[in-house]
Amino acid sequence: MAPSHATPEANPFLVDTGTPPIPEAKGWLASYDGSRGAVIDLSQAAPGHAPPPVLLRALAGAAADPATARYGPIRGEDSLRAAYARDLERAYGTPFNADDSVIVSGCNQAFLMAVLSVARAGDAVILPYPWYFNHKMALDMLGIETIPLPCRPENGFVPDVAEIAALMTKRTRAIALVTPNNPTGAVYPPATIRAVSECAQQHGLWLILDETYRDFLPLGQDRPHDLFASGIPVHVLQLYSFSKAYSLPGYRLGAISAPGGIMPELAKVLDTVQICPPRVGQIAVGSVMEETLAWREANRATIAGRAEAFRRALLPLNAWQIGSVGAYFAYVKPPHGAGDAAAFARHLAVNEGILALPGSYFGPDQEQWLRIAFANADEAQLATLGQRLGSAALPET
Amino acid sequence: MAPSHATPEANPFLVDTGTPPIPEAKGWLASYDGSRGAVIDLSQAAPGHAPPPVLLRALAGAAADPATARYGPIRGEDSLRAAYARDLERAYGTPFNADDSVIVSGCNQAFLMAVLSVARAGDAVILPYPWYFNHKMALDMLGIETIPLPCRPENGFVPDVAEIAALMTKRTRAIALVTPNNPTGAVYPPATIRAVSECAQQHGLWLILDETYRDFLPLGQDRPHDLFASGIPVHVLQLYSFSKAYSLPGYRLGAISAPGGIMPELAKVLDTVQICPPRVGQIAVGSVMEETLAWREANRATIAGRAEAFRRALLPLNAWQIGSVGAYFAYVKPPHGAGDAAAFARHLAVNEGILALPGSYFGPDQEQWLRIAFANADEAQLATLGQRLGSAALPET
Repeated sequence: MAPSHATPEANPFLVDTGTPPIPEAKGWLASYDGSRGAVIDLSQAAPGHAPPPVLLRALAGAAADPATARYGPIRGEDSLRAAYARDLERAYGTPFNADDSVIVSGCNQAFLMAVLSVARAGDAVILPYPWYFNHKMALDMLGIETIPLPCRPENGFVPDVAEIAALMTKRTRAIALVTPNNPTGAVYPPATIRAVSECAQQHGLWLILDETYRDFLPLGQDRPHDLFASGIPVHVLQLYSFSKAYSLPGYRLGAISAPGGIMPELAKVLDTVQICPPRVGQIAVGSVMEETLAWREANRATIAGRAEAFRRALLPLNAWQIGSVGAYFAYVKPPHGAGDAAAFARHLAVNEGILALPGSYFGPDQEQWLRIAFANADEAQLATLGQRLGSAALPET
Repeated sequence: MAPSHATPEANPFLVDTGTPPIPEAKGWLASYDGSRGAVIDLSQAAPGHAPPPVLLRALAGAAADPATARYGPIRGEDSLRAAYARDLERAYGTPFNADDSVIVSGCNQAFLMAVLSVARAGDAVILPYPWYFNHKMALDMLGIETIPLPCRPENGFVPDVAEIAALMTKRTRAIALVTPNNPTGAVYPPATIRAVSECAQQHGLWLILDETYRDFLPLGQDRPHDLFASGIPVHVLQLYSFSKAYSLPGYRLGAISAPGGIMPELAKVLDTVQICPPRVGQIAVGSVMEETLAWREANRATIAGRAEAFRRALLPLNAWQIGSVGAYFAYVKPPHGAGDAAAFARHLAVNEGILALPGSYFGPDQEQWLRIAFANADEAQLATLGQRLGSAALPET
């Protein structure tokens, strides 16, 4: 029999998964002629500055050491997990130990691993929307149903716990929260986080709590929430990213903190996905975590200042609505008549050299919204932003 | 309603997945008293030597550059993919370009991603056994059925293509080959690889071809196979690891080469699992790939020498059977009466300070076999190996 030369099909779950949207958006900038000034890229939560000097030196030192090139522990470097426990204590004001956390390759991977730990194809996960598109992609790719929980502009894009119970099905295994939120920037009140956690526990669900942006709470707020007052609850998987706080997304470094009961299952996922996390970033960050605390706090103040600068930039634009602002992101609605968000975002990129992501990337009913990653822009860029956004609000179309 | 405080359950697919076995085996060494000499750890395919000096310098240089800390491309660094295309041309004697390959975090992850690209929960994949335990774990974790294809000692642990068709079901999506093989070390003849590829294509299946150990072919063999003579076939996903050839497993660096048709689907997996691969190793390896060719070839000769030294070490042990030897591994059967492999491997570790993995880690019907990662041991260690194995062949039990 002669070979058929037919291409076999891809995984149908994957075919139904959305395409990574950021490359598409970045492509729009190719048509911008530069006439309105340098490009302001507000598309991705990518720190715009270098890591602190002491960390850069530690990275180079770790890479120069041949021992770094050997396999490391499945759960991550002991030194980093121990240092991270101290950082968790600082953040939550309650004791942690090294074995409460495992290290993974970034918080995107942390979400995938958390989901793999608690749900299988055919199960369902409650996901507030607008959602982070990679979370939806992860669930789709694994054949796990997404149950959308609306976060409404009139509530500052904070989910309403009273709506959760009605959404549950027999196949629901978990609810995922992202706070401070991506894409909206909404910082969920501790009382909301606690209420959702209790609701999840009462119904036998896991709570996957993505705190990628935990280090960028508003300056007046000291604690993200009080869930960990008596240790990590038996139903909570908490996710963290080192990328933003230490300015090193290129190293892919994140963490999952979880109760002891799930750790043996999580270790299987870690081993199967990666054997061990890459070591340079782990070794370096673990060695300078305390030393960089002042730098990180200064960085937090800088980003908080940018949130204020962003608000100021939009003040003259009366027709624009700010849905929420916080941590790294603002979620805004351009003037009515700007068309759908995808067309308007393309218009902004092509004509104004400003790249923001359209709400349509973040779930249903978001056609009128834009996500603006203001934390990437410095004050000078933010100062010109209002004028350039204002011009764009009068599209020729 | 008071919280139930019950722990929700883990993903049942995951609960049915095996535990990472290497930590268990390494634990046995804690009971060794040192009386037979230093520990010889033959448990893991971990290069025993440092990366080449020029690569170490490139790693330190990449880590010192703040630009490395930024996000990189989803598919991996362009520079590495271009350099890797040249290396593929050298290995297979046929043209490649940068877009034929994507970079991932090690070959374990490459397998997981390849499987995610072509199969979903409820599908099936044909897996020759003895298998690499992480492959079985990946399929179990995703709820994909493993169809075991026996590799028999009388065939040198090379699969028989004539047995494949009878194993196929309507749900079978792919067949996975590992050559040179882990755990057996068997180097599949090019004719076998071609026959399996044609069989897969005739039946509309993907071929996942894991060539982690491609750089360690026996010295007389120039080409791993001729599948790529007319480009990458439309049904082949080929996997590679930089860890062994460049001695840097701690950087987690691998590649998937695949036909253009599946690349958009694969990009979704890459984005969802990791956003981008960690960059230090990518940038450094890409910059010294050609420069390190002589070092890599010398390393290949060293490892081939170790295979010979291993054969010599076992020559006096008449009662031992060598099932196969090649690339990094030997698959051997201790004398009858040594009991099952797990008990014997533990005995070897505890009494002789030699750590090899029991066949039982590698699938059904392997109780009498041991996997020995001889490539980790230097010639001096291998010289003492025969004597220590010989003593252990007379267990007190």
